[in-house]
Amino acid sequence: MQTAFAVKGNLFYTPVCGKLARYPGAYLVCENGTVAGIFDTLPDRYQGILVEDYGDKLILPGLVDLHVHGGQYAYRGLGMDMELLDWLEKNAFPEESRFAEAAYAEAAYHIFVDALLHSATTRASIFATLHRPATLRLMEMLEQAGLPCFVGKVNMDRNSPDYLRESTAESLAETRRWLEESRDFAVVRPILTPRFTPSCTDDLMNGLGKLHREFGTPVQSHLSENLSEIAWVQQLCPGTRFYGEAYARFGLFGGDCPTIMAHCVWSGEEERALMKEQGVFIAHCPQSNMNVSSGIAPVKQYLREGQKVGLGSDVAGGAHLSIFRAMTDAIQCSKLRWRLVDQDTPALTLPEALYMATKGGGAFFGKVGSFEPGYQFDAVVLDDSTLSTTRSCTLDERLERLVYLSDGRPCAKYAAGRKLF
Amino acid sequence: MQTAFAVKGNLFYTPVCGKLARYPGAYLVCENGTVAGIFDTLPDRYQGILVEDYGDKLILPGLVDLHVHGGQYAYRGLGMDMELLDWLEKNAFPEESRFAEAAYAEAAYHIFVDALLHSATTRASIFATLHRPATLRLMEMLEQAGLPCFVGKVNMDRNSPDYLRESTAESLAETRRWLEESRDFAVVRPILTPRFTPSCTDDLMNGLGKLHREFGTPVQSHLSENLSEIAWVQQLCPGTRFYGEAYARFGLFGGDCPTIMAHCVWSGEEERALMKEQGVFIAHCPQSNMNVSSGIAPVKQYLREGQKVGLGSDVAGGAHLSIFRAMTDAIQCSKLRWRLVDQDTPALTLPEALYMATKGGGAFFGKVGSFEPGYQFDAVVLDDSTLSTTRSCTLDERLERLVYLSDGRPCAKYAAGRKLF
Repeated sequence: MQTAFAVKGNLFYTPVCGKLARYPGAYLVCENGTVAGIFDTLPDRYQGILVEDYGDKLILPGLVDLHVHGGQYAYRGLGMDMELLDWLEKNAFPEESRFAEAAYAEAAYHIFVDALLHSATTRASIFATLHRPATLRLMEMLEQAGLPCFVGKVNMDRNSPDYLRESTAESLAETRRWLEESRDFAVVRPILTPRFTPSCTDDLMNGLGKLHREFGTPVQSHLSENLSEIAWVQQLCPGTRFYGEAYARFGLFGGDCPTIMAHCVWSGEEERALMKEQGVFIAHCPQSNMNVSSGIAPVKQYLREGQKVGLGSDVAGGAHLSIFRAMTDAIQCSKLRWRLVDQDTPALTLPEALYMATKGGGAFFGKVGSFEPGYQFDAVVLDDSTLSTTRSCTLDERLERLVYLSDGRPCAKYAAGRKLF
Repeated sequence: MQTAFAVKGNLFYTPVCGKLARYPGAYLVCENGTVAGIFDTLPDRYQGILVEDYGDKLILPGLVDLHVHGGQYAYRGLGMDMELLDWLEKNAFPEESRFAEAAYAEAAYHIFVDALLHSATTRASIFATLHRPATLRLMEMLEQAGLPCFVGKVNMDRNSPDYLRESTAESLAETRRWLEESRDFAVVRPILTPRFTPSCTDDLMNGLGKLHREFGTPVQSHLSENLSEIAWVQQLCPGTRFYGEAYARFGLFGGDCPTIMAHCVWSGEEERALMKEQGVFIAHCPQSNMNVSSGIAPVKQYLREGQKVGLGSDVAGGAHLSIFRAMTDAIQCSKLRWRLVDQDTPALTLPEALYMATKGGGAFFGKVGSFEPGYQFDAVVLDDSTLSTTRSCTLDERLERLVYLSDGRPCAKYAAGRKLF
């Protein structure tokens, strides 16, 4: 019992997609870092454990950001009047190149980790930059903050400026060294991160496939975000029938290799069939897809066909780190998609968005994103009392208001059973 | 010189749509409530006037909210999983009916006015509810706060529940009495507010047209928001070729009658031609149009064809009162429209969005929304120093970050030459 404690408040989670479970004024017990159960009154066996009583506040599973660029946080909200490929060249690449300098990386990642720590996100899958030392420093900071994230040193050996490109050999050697140096982290884990097909030669992809098989490291990349990008991949990989094959032929597309693919705005039937078969995780990033004019991913259909889907802020394609904002952006975009593209597919609902933001994306991290017994104890406590209203709201209404209106900063936060603040 | 003062800081405004003027560290002089000029150094004739030095902060014209429902603020962010006509019936109408009770109205409008006061919005055109006493109380509160708004007692005599419907005679009598009682306000002005065609009989519209001609009061309503609504109007008004005619035939559609029409998502060529000819103001409310699944208004085309366009939060169809949020929503929606609907019309730019948020909507209030000489002195001072970044940003970049990332709360605010805080 020594390692057990409880939090008390109004608990919500989504046991399955689209279903909201709520437990008013209940105890959520943590034992050895995982959820032991939810109780209206504390059972005898837990008498005497520490109880943090959060009164009338709302408690949710920590949110999961399946796609965010740590090395782009400094310029979120900038250059938004550009399309994807322009924006990469004029905005993203010059900024990322600065992470070669240790002092710059230190300052920039400090701001990013501080923002992530004080957000409602407990877990994220993060693109760093191609610089191994800076990537390791980011991992140290996240470890220190107690945020159990995946972090990737980015690989890119073509179609990028000289100042932000590795040779193939160098990229693979640096990646191997980084994987070896990442072994001692307790909660932070490495993830292989070929930037996207246009940035990576076949030789590099082949080498990353081998590193995956040697180290068992999962992989993250971008897929079918933008029509110009897809046409470019078609030119670069003439033997492929669809973009996803450009990863799959190197063993970097699910199956034995846990994989997150960001965006999937324009994935066709064959690509979707392969994603489903291989259990590829889709990181839906609605705000970024608006900002760089990519379109609206058919997320409701993805959920209906049983794809694995989570949400991503995609900072700095997205300007906001808040996954609450990603939830409402996803709902709003799905309404526009219904109206403008496909009236056979209804809009996403709030419980569906919350599922994607918690258990949907969380599944990439193991048993994460729910308050069911055995799940990692990730929880955020949220105070909605500052959102003034004259209405007496039900618990479900309070949750909806919180998601739409709050700044997304919890007043207390737990990850993997540890209280972060 | 007694009534002159200056503010000093980094000034921005949009003299014409799409052009951004910026004056780093400049003086903006106010004389008798209007802008006297912008100066790098203070001219001799202004020596000795009060100068409020805001250092490196950003100063913009006060933002203008061309469409917001004061009587719906209490339930912003609620019921968002519904479409327009459902949402009205289940959410808006029951809430608005509570404003019959003075104590409820007092509490609810207090929250609304406080939020508006501390936002970057200096002027708004507001729907109250159909209750005359509550509407007058809202006007008093706005007058007290120094916010020079238009406020409308809502008219509705059909197609709404018994508990929120007037008889035609009662609606007109109450409106006349309200117009008479509104005469003594210094900065707040009444605006005729037929809710929308489905809520108003021909007799009521006819009576409102007469009241306009007698009192010279401008008018606001809703137009072509939603396809179901448009089909309904077609049924209700069989003689009309398009929705706008349902207002025009009563003299309530621009020309001598200054008019704001909210939404115009689906306005066809004839309607647009009449709006342009009559100088009808379009209140573009992108967030609301997403939330209630209406669609994306062709705003870039409206600007190109010379329509008068401003932005609206449309709380509570929109969840957020911030017109910065409306600016970024407008830009994001225009990108989706380009991608999904019309690739001949490019996305809105930040300077275009700022123009709509200031001078575009401001024109409905007179010379409002610019720092050109003779304009009403409406200004907001914004502190972007809390938006941490390692980049040294240009002034234009600081403006973009502020619009995308800030909570929209200024640190100082002036309206019509008066300092509000």
